[in-house]
Amino acid sequence: MTDYRSPSTGRAVRAVLFDTFGTVVDWRSGIAASVGRFAHRHQLSLDPAAFALEWRGRYLPSMAEVRSGRREFVSLDVLHRENLLESFEKFGVAAEALPGGEVDDLARSWRWLPPWPDSVEGIEAMKRHVIVGPLSNGNTGLLVDMAKYAGLPWDVVLGSDVSKAFKPDPRAYRTPAELLGLEPGEVMLVAAHPSDLEAAQTSGLATGFVARPDEYGPGRPTDPPPPGAWDVSGASLIELAASLFGTPDQR
Amino acid sequence: MTDYRSPSTGRAVRAVLFDTFGTVVDWRSGIAASVGRFAHRHQLSLDPAAFALEWRGRYLPSMAEVRSGRREFVSLDVLHRENLLESFEKFGVAAEALPGGEVDDLARSWRWLPPWPDSVEGIEAMKRHVIVGPLSNGNTGLLVDMAKYAGLPWDVVLGSDVSKAFKPDPRAYRTPAELLGLEPGEVMLVAAHPSDLEAAQTSGLATGFVARPDEYGPGRPTDPPPPGAWDVSGASLIELAASLFGTPDQR
Repeated sequence: MTDYRSPSTGRAVRAVLFDTFGTVVDWRSGIAASVGRFAHRHQLSLDPAAFALEWRGRYLPSMAEVRSGRREFVSLDVLHRENLLESFEKFGVAAEALPGGEVDDLARSWRWLPPWPDSVEGIEAMKRHVIVGPLSNGNTGLLVDMAKYAGLPWDVVLGSDVSKAFKPDPRAYRTPAELLGLEPGEVMLVAAHPSDLEAAQTSGLATGFVARPDEYGPGRPTDPPPPGAWDVSGASLIELAASLFGTPDQR
Repeated sequence: MTDYRSPSTGRAVRAVLFDTFGTVVDWRSGIAASVGRFAHRHQLSLDPAAFALEWRGRYLPSMAEVRSGRREFVSLDVLHRENLLESFEKFGVAAEALPGGEVDDLARSWRWLPPWPDSVEGIEAMKRHVIVGPLSNGNTGLLVDMAKYAGLPWDVVLGSDVSKAFKPDPRAYRTPAELLGLEPGEVMLVAAHPSDLEAAQTSGLATGFVARPDEYGPGRPTDPPPPGAWDVSGASLIELAASLFGTPDQR
């Protein structure tokens, strides 16, 4: 076991927690595949990849209602279902003509997402040195199902329904640290999204950036992060693990 | 993946959750070893095995204060430390003369407990079919450290500090089911203690009994459970896994 001390927090990192959608798993491919199968079965003519982007596009606005306090906390499963119905409407699909149980299943398809090719190996490498887990807006049941499907070897799964807060609410970052008996500075968030990392930093966490240029599909590059803003950066979770704890040869 | 339907709840079991102290790990040997090392280092003359029983004996009464509402919820780590100081007093040890940091470390030794010989293999076998995790009075940080030390391959770890309730409070049994998105009857508690199983049953969970005759040491047998009261019973977690999901040959 090797220690990594965060330059920004001045603490040895005891837990590395990961944003999931886009950072650990490829939601776009997974959702497009589920939507494609659903559309084929019900003979709907729609572009599954475009539908996935539409559905995901409603993610942040729907959580904003809860974050602002205008709406009581509800689980992401509930928001995903509401956002699915709105996406159907946008695409001209008459949802009321579809079997309800199958719509429910499709709403839950944010569980069945493929990991990026480096995710499992990178998380395994970090798990030898620190506690690993998700730090996601997903609810606990969703994240546990996702982990079993994708083979994510988490030590602990504490969903947003435990902290009853969505990121970037500071409680979303601090509650997992507290439940693990750690100071915020002993926890690192790894994410592909600078806004998530900025909020984590504001809440006192260490930060690691991983580039996921294909999150929204090939040829839709996201902005590069400002250099030096995070404790570590890399092109994969395997690279990040090596930056934090060395490669097996170096140990 | 094989389904197991609980005769008592009439539901397919989706998660098997385990009592930990005594059921999955051997607290008596582990605590006696930690106490023995501590006593040796500080030249204390005491019987480590007897001290372990004394310390554990204060477990239920200390939680009863919280369960009754006379005291606000505090984590088991806090209770373990208080109970350690009381046990020192009972054994005539002047705790104030000992280095505080080392007393803190000893209070946290309920993390470093050996699994029973069949625990890891039995849990692995069930993990292929259902979600596995602890359902313990331990706090999340304690249970995650315990799992990493003992190699317990949990899918999810939700400590008593998540439900803010100690067993046999019904909230301790129902909160994990709720966070997993499951009905109580889709969750099975496995425990070596009939009182724990009775409370789980009252809360609507399925139940599995595993015999741990050596929990309090060889030659101190515990009462046998009334036959037929639980969905399944066995002499090891491997036996229970086979009763629930068949042996690899039968599948």
